[in-house]
Amino acid sequence: MYGLIWLTDLQSKISTIDLLIMLTSALCHDLDHPGYNNAYQINAQTELALRYNDISPLENHHCAVAFSIMSKPECNILKNVTCEHYKHIRGGVIRCILATDMARHNDILSQFKSFQPVFDFSNKEHKEVLMKIMVKVSDISNEARPMAVAEPWLDCLLQEFFHQSDSEKLKGLPVAPFMDRDKVSKPSSQTNFIRFVLLPLFSELTKLFPCLQQHIVEPVRRALQHYSDLESASQKGTSSA
Amino acid sequence: MYGLIWLTDLQSKISTIDLLIMLTSALCHDLDHPGYNNAYQINAQTELALRYNDISPLENHHCAVAFSIMSKPECNILKNVTCEHYKHIRGGVIRCILATDMARHNDILSQFKSFQPVFDFSNKEHKEVLMKIMVKVSDISNEARPMAVAEPWLDCLLQEFFHQSDSEKLKGLPVAPFMDRDKVSKPSSQTNFIRFVLLPLFSELTKLFPCLQQHIVEPVRRALQHYSDLESASQKGTSSA
Repeated sequence: MYGLIWLTDLQSKISTIDLLIMLTSALCHDLDHPGYNNAYQINAQTELALRYNDISPLENHHCAVAFSIMSKPECNILKNVTCEHYKHIRGGVIRCILATDMARHNDILSQFKSFQPVFDFSNKEHKEVLMKIMVKVSDISNEARPMAVAEPWLDCLLQEFFHQSDSEKLKGLPVAPFMDRDKVSKPSSQTNFIRFVLLPLFSELTKLFPCLQQHIVEPVRRALQHYSDLESASQKGTSSA
Repeated sequence: MYGLIWLTDLQSKISTIDLLIMLTSALCHDLDHPGYNNAYQINAQTELALRYNDISPLENHHCAVAFSIMSKPECNILKNVTCEHYKHIRGGVIRCILATDMARHNDILSQFKSFQPVFDFSNKEHKEVLMKIMVKVSDISNEARPMAVAEPWLDCLLQEFFHQSDSEKLKGLPVAPFMDRDKVSKPSSQTNFIRFVLLPLFSELTKLFPCLQQHIVEPVRRALQHYSDLESASQKGTSSA
């Protein structure tokens, strides 16, 4: 997020308070994540799903934990802001963190698309959706980083997914194919995710900030090529075996 | 709610499972209410507002408490329903209880209006909004009851409002005029509420079920007349004093 703000020169376009909202949201958006996604929470009827009535249980929890931490005197980074600014920051952080629920991905991206090509930084609605998009891009930007940085995190993620789907199988709960170790490989998981989620999102933000092309679009295109090659090689290996 | 279902012969129009959803929602919709409304929760930054990120904190809590009670073996009225029915009931009760947040009143009423006069009981979207409207009507139906039943409850409600606004004044929080003992009287509070909230809502439901005219619209018209008379009398008293 810090990198994105500098690359896009966003500090010249929106207020420092809005930058604070985006940075705080990016930092706090997954606080106390239990390693099982919303579908699991809801299907397994966990305490979080019960508490949040199946509505974005994780994101609601991350956000509540964020403000619970900030309410401690030794962590209260908002202690000296005015009451009005506090309300603005709280509203903004809540909106941005709740926007990281991938179940809302298409709605938020569609809304952002509808504002282009006449995006208006002085329009509150436009600006708020941009802030959500910036937090979402940061959230899922792993593949925009150098392979040596991205791959170990991808391995961790797949481990988390497989751990969840193993639990789901044991408990007889529904299993998402993209989490199932019997159905997904590292290359196939990434080619689909980059094609259908990352590229449409990153390309849309790049229309507004063309400078991002080389920083987020090109790296994920290279990653897509890399994982496509691996996928083809593994398919050739399978068919010649 | 039980009365409304019988009066409208709703059991011949929607499934028994949907009736169960409405009855359960009506019964549970205010569970563990602390006597301070959402505005207070949010402005006073209470534990509920923190937990629910200022999003319908009370209604989210009522609903979570409902399912927490139903999860106890001795209270589990849903123990013997199929997994599919359980999901349907849970989704329905959540929607109906969250619909009782009066901040959403106009949106829900507008949506219901948009389905008339070609309301279709077999249309899922139409039916779900009707269920919300039925729970909302039950929720705020006090004034449709005989004066001798309604008035003691109104006194309790005003006491709750005044108690909240007294706390708000002490804490320097914003005070809603309709809760302020210095700005509202029993008659004035009711004439406004009946005119701007009850009659528009009850009249809309009565378009779909004309038989409700005598049971909910006429009684609140009589209550409006009663409180208008009291209001005029008190104004005359004030101006002649």
